[in-house]
Amino acid sequence: MKRILAAIALTLAGTAATGADQLPMAPNGIAYLTGYRSWEAVAPSWRDDKGQIRIILGNPTAMAALRQGTRPFPDGTTFAKLAWSAKKHPKFPVATVPDTFVQVEFMVKDGAKYKTTGGWGFARFVGNTLRPYGKDPSFVQECFGCHTPVKDNDFVFTHLAPIP
Amino acid sequence: MKRILAAIALTLAGTAATGADQLPMAPNGIAYLTGYRSWEAVAPSWRDDKGQIRIILGNPTAMAALRQGTRPFPDGTTFAKLAWSAKKHPKFPVATVPDTFVQVEFMVKDGAKYKTTGGWGFARFVGNTLRPYGKDPSFVQECFGCHTPVKDNDFVFTHLAPIP
Ligand code: HEC
Ligand code: HEC
Repeated sequence: MKRILAAIALTLAGTAATGADQLPMAPNGIAYLTGYRSWEAVAPSWRDDKGQIRIILGNPTAMAALRQGTRPFPDGTTFAKLAWSAKKHPKFPVATVPDTFVQVEFMVKDGAKYKTTGGWGFARFVGNTLRPYGKDPSFVQECFGCHTPVKDNDFVFTHLAPIP
Repeated sequence: MKRILAAIALTLAGTAATGADQLPMAPNGIAYLTGYRSWEAVAPSWRDDKGQIRIILGNPTAMAALRQGTRPFPDGTTFAKLAWSAKKHPKFPVATVPDTFVQVEFMVKDGAKYKTTGGWGFARFVGNTLRPYGKDPSFVQECFGCHTPVKDNDFVFTHLAPIP
């Protein structure tokens, strides 16, 4: 009986680890985060060259650090950047609005774990299948490289869009 | 003694009604809402002609209605539209990001109260002083007029930006 239970437990564990409901995982081991859609908006952004419109969201740790001006950002800070292809609003063409989902990117702060990339763990999930970006863990060099010009802001481009 | 207390109470009431901490109020009686900054983002938008970048936020009633496709939106639905002037990111000029705060606008659903404008109460607060827009309550005709092309979506332009 003990053996049967153990076998069932193993089977269930196997299902959990490889089943269809498993979250996509970036090559550096960062899994797709759920729940970020309800985080606060840090700012919108518009990419002329790519015709993409974005929102950058921050978890509560990120928002507190932004409001208090804490740099470096504390461990646990997480940003999500959502990108959509853009279209002209069919009923009001001078407004450019989201069309289809392009990708979501994450930056997760853990000073010890991600020491070689400024303390940030990077991950990108592409398209409606949330396909993890990057062939192997070295993909983060591309992210980190591009974020290096904002080293003085702890590698974060986005500032809190002001309200009175 | 009763007279003195009554006088003090009146003075305090007067202070509350006209004091510096009073919330700005639109000519139709809608006061500036607080707390909307933590609502969920519905979508970003970009106005080419005005060089403004925006985020549309929705309160929990709004978000539920958007997710379930409920039309007309139920009473209590509230949208906030935040607008900033835009600038090129100083460290990455192809990204257009918020610069200074322009205004915040609200649409508050109350089918009975705002019957003549599709059930929506409109309000706009401008600049860092949050100056209420409009000389008298008829300012809402401008808002309502412009939102009429999207009557088939209960006068709401913005759709929930999709994520997988
Ligand atoms: C070509 C330059 C470039 C590359 C490569 C790049 N980023 Fe960024 N990233 C930016 C810019 C610029 C912003 C500011 C917002 C915008 O442009 O929409 C940004 C913003 C972000 C944000 C929001 C926090 C912030 O810094 O503002 C996250 C999260 C993010 N990037 C993750 C990633 C990940 C993950 C990768 C790699 C898989 C990556 N980035 C690669 C340029 C880049
Ligand atoms: C010239 C046309 C025009 C006028 C006038 C106008 N709006 Fe809008 N409004 C829009 C468009 C287009 C959108 C979609 C988002 C965008 O353009 O950024 C919108 C979006 C909104 C939203 C977000 C919900 C939605 O419908 O998408 C609110 C809230 C809002 N407007 C309030 C107001 C208020 C309050 C006024 C008047 C004081 C007003 N609007 C006047 C065109 C207009």
